[in-house]
Amino acid sequence: MASVLTSQSDDFPRWYQDVIAKAELADNGPVRGTMVIRPYGYAIWERIQAEMDARIKACGAQNAYFPLFIPESYMRREAEHVEGFSPELAVVTHAGGKQLEEPIIVRPTSETVIGEFMAKWVQSYRDLPLLLNQWANVVRWELRPRLFLRTSEFLWQEGHTAHATHDEARDYALRILHEAYEDLMVDVLAIPVVVGRKTKQERFAGAINTLTCEAMMLDGKALQMGTSHELGQNFAKAFDIEYSSRDGARELAWTTSWGSSARMVGGLIMVHGDDAGLRVPPALAPTQVVVMAIKPEVVDAVHKIGTELRDAGVRVVVDDRADIPFGRRAVDWELKGVPLRVELGPRDLDGGVATLALRLSGGKQPVALAELSGEIARRLVDEQQAMLDFAREARDARIAEVSTVDDAAAAAAEGWAKIAWSTLGEEGEAKLAQSAVTVRCLQRADGSVPDSDTEPDLVAYVGRSY
Amino acid sequence: MASVLTSQSDDFPRWYQDVIAKAELADNGPVRGTMVIRPYGYAIWERIQAEMDARIKACGAQNAYFPLFIPESYMRREAEHVEGFSPELAVVTHAGGKQLEEPIIVRPTSETVIGEFMAKWVQSYRDLPLLLNQWANVVRWELRPRLFLRTSEFLWQEGHTAHATHDEARDYALRILHEAYEDLMVDVLAIPVVVGRKTKQERFAGAINTLTCEAMMLDGKALQMGTSHELGQNFAKAFDIEYSSRDGARELAWTTSWGSSARMVGGLIMVHGDDAGLRVPPALAPTQVVVMAIKPEVVDAVHKIGTELRDAGVRVVVDDRADIPFGRRAVDWELKGVPLRVELGPRDLDGGVATLALRLSGGKQPVALAELSGEIARRLVDEQQAMLDFAREARDARIAEVSTVDDAAAAAAEGWAKIAWSTLGEEGEAKLAQSAVTVRCLQRADGSVPDSDTEPDLVAYVGRSY
Repeated sequence: MASVLTSQSDDFPRWYQDVIAKAELADNGPVRGTMVIRPYGYAIWERIQAEMDARIKACGAQNAYFPLFIPESYMRREAEHVEGFSPELAVVTHAGGKQLEEPIIVRPTSETVIGEFMAKWVQSYRDLPLLLNQWANVVRWELRPRLFLRTSEFLWQEGHTAHATHDEARDYALRILHEAYEDLMVDVLAIPVVVGRKTKQERFAGAINTLTCEAMMLDGKALQMGTSHELGQNFAKAFDIEYSSRDGARELAWTTSWGSSARMVGGLIMVHGDDAGLRVPPALAPTQVVVMAIKPEVVDAVHKIGTELRDAGVRVVVDDRADIPFGRRAVDWELKGVPLRVELGPRDLDGGVATLALRLSGGKQPVALAELSGEIARRLVDEQQAMLDFAREARDARIAEVSTVDDAAAAAAEGWAKIAWSTLGEEGEAKLAQSAVTVRCLQRADGSVPDSDTEPDLVAYVGRSY
Repeated sequence: MASVLTSQSDDFPRWYQDVIAKAELADNGPVRGTMVIRPYGYAIWERIQAEMDARIKACGAQNAYFPLFIPESYMRREAEHVEGFSPELAVVTHAGGKQLEEPIIVRPTSETVIGEFMAKWVQSYRDLPLLLNQWANVVRWELRPRLFLRTSEFLWQEGHTAHATHDEARDYALRILHEAYEDLMVDVLAIPVVVGRKTKQERFAGAINTLTCEAMMLDGKALQMGTSHELGQNFAKAFDIEYSSRDGARELAWTTSWGSSARMVGGLIMVHGDDAGLRVPPALAPTQVVVMAIKPEVVDAVHKIGTELRDAGVRVVVDDRADIPFGRRAVDWELKGVPLRVELGPRDLDGGVATLALRLSGGKQPVALAELSGEIARRLVDEQQAMLDFAREARDARIAEVSTVDDAAAAAAEGWAKIAWSTLGEEGEAKLAQSAVTVRCLQRADGSVPDSDTEPDLVAYVGRSY
């Protein structure tokens, strides 16, 4: 069967675009750099969002909503950030049929407004910790957009928290990193992210510490999937977030912020896709199983199987379009990366069996109809694990342990390099930057996240990135 | 206990603002007309959204996401709508650090972009029906904003569907009205909406039929809570939404659109609130039960009760802040309208009882701890029903059946009038409009939704509205 996609090895970026188009994930919007997220792409994002939201709430944060529009004067509040954003800003100058007295910025993040309101809401130590999260669209003008990865408007969550002490803020930033971000990415997206600490160079402007989840794409490049920042007292100083302590003293709060976005969908595609299309891990998949009628005679039977699986808690779609050639439909479900296909023809039905096709590990097997539900429950678990294992192997095969800066640069052409931070240092980091190679993160030798970049025996992961 | 709110009878609009502030539902944003939705207000909206989303999906629609930004040229596509919107539009003229060649509109709805993409996605009868929904923020500049009811940016869902036939489109518009909107509003929000058909005068621009859910506020005014439109082939004509039929002919599609928004939160406040604050129906409430420790000695015990209720599927918050005066906390939970309070003191605990306080129907009763869980499950159901009954009585008490246009105008000073449509007619409608009284909807005598405004024996509900 001729492939409908450019192959990954021929042209990876083109393959990526092809998958997005053919699996009906997204389209370019009419304004340059904007994106239409089509129903199937949005269903994947909704599942990510639901799983992330549950984890964020389990960490105690509450959702709120802040306005899209920000007075231009607010953007001057935190000088350090303005410089980072200003060419990226979209500016509303007219509304209500006339020119505005003060231009309005379409939020590139809500942090300035949230800072303003945190200062209002935090008065006493009783108001702490204040743990806020927002799901929203934000705008950062993009001249070289890429669907899901970098678009002028994108969907994300941003968390902002205020705490009484440095330790509490540090613990919370780390908790979000592990319990919300890493847990979702590994357990649901089946993406074996490397978690660690950013170097000073790569740190978020205004942060005293940036933590990150880095994923390895199949082309060897890194994608930053989520970051969690300790802002020390910098942010509280800029926005006057003060509280009266138990003994009545006025104290500055310690704050954190953390974000993840629909670029995770881009990561999902580039970690799990193959030349036949997308592959979606069962724990995430909006459709875990498609039950296909090969011929019109079995339409009732596939609906019966669909109902049975749905009752068993499986997310299932019944494909009863027997008037469309089976092969075309099968290719389409492969493109969409649905983990399991149940294929039923009249002869199968007579024999009391169906064919179970595995999108992830490949292959087909006959399964007795009476055992279908149990077999599918087992396979969904197995395939989830298989995808994580596969992604981990693919990642590790592209990580070279090196001991010189030159070798690190060379390795970064194909994947990542792992090098002692004491060998690389800020000087080596600057040298790598000349060939667009960056330190993705620092880790301790045991893989845990360091408290500081001056700890001994740290390891740096370096690579090119999206 | 002195009330912290203006009373409803003294000044209803002021009471409304007070509830929003004191129950910590929302705040004004820094740009005029924008709104900050605080965590408690957002939790209520999230619950409405989740319940609505489930109903919309059960009607077969899929969520998608279209861009915030729309080229100005798109707004000229459907002339009829532009005239309705243009003073309401917010316009981006600068982005990426320079002036844009074509100004960009911040979406007042996504209908023009969705129309464009529907035309792309609909090719054959096989692609129909196409059932799309979007949850998003939209912007319509407001000079007289009112929190939740009318703000320059608001959160809503808009559905857009395309069908092969007139009948299918009509049935779907009606299905959304009943199965998504009315069902949610009555069964979850406990708001006994009157559903019906708009007159020509009140119809959505471009629609051939507008269906509506109208709620009666406690001040006698109407709030339009959701509308569902048949657009005939008008929209399809404007956007070239054509399909090839089974026999190969090119046909124009029939479309619908339907929307509901966070103004439902405003309706909730004004239907169920009282002088002590908000009252949230149990089926909706983000917090159904608060378990309060009266003294520090019972903190462990209230957490135990909290866990027990949570395990029983109740949405519960434990208030263990025994260092804050009990009365202050109780007032606060009343303001927030939490349906049930469990109050536990040391003596209660010794006696194996707790006090159950009902926010909705008032009153307190002792309940044996062993029976608490069962009693709460019963009360949550009873109180939900009681709220709907109460709202229905309050509504009906303010509806006057009248037989002249003058009497209708008079009745509309206090509530709604119900008058034969044959008596009122378009002439009477025009006369009422002079005193800002409008026909909220037309119904058949049996309360069902008419197919046309020329059916005999129709009844018109008229009133002032938000």
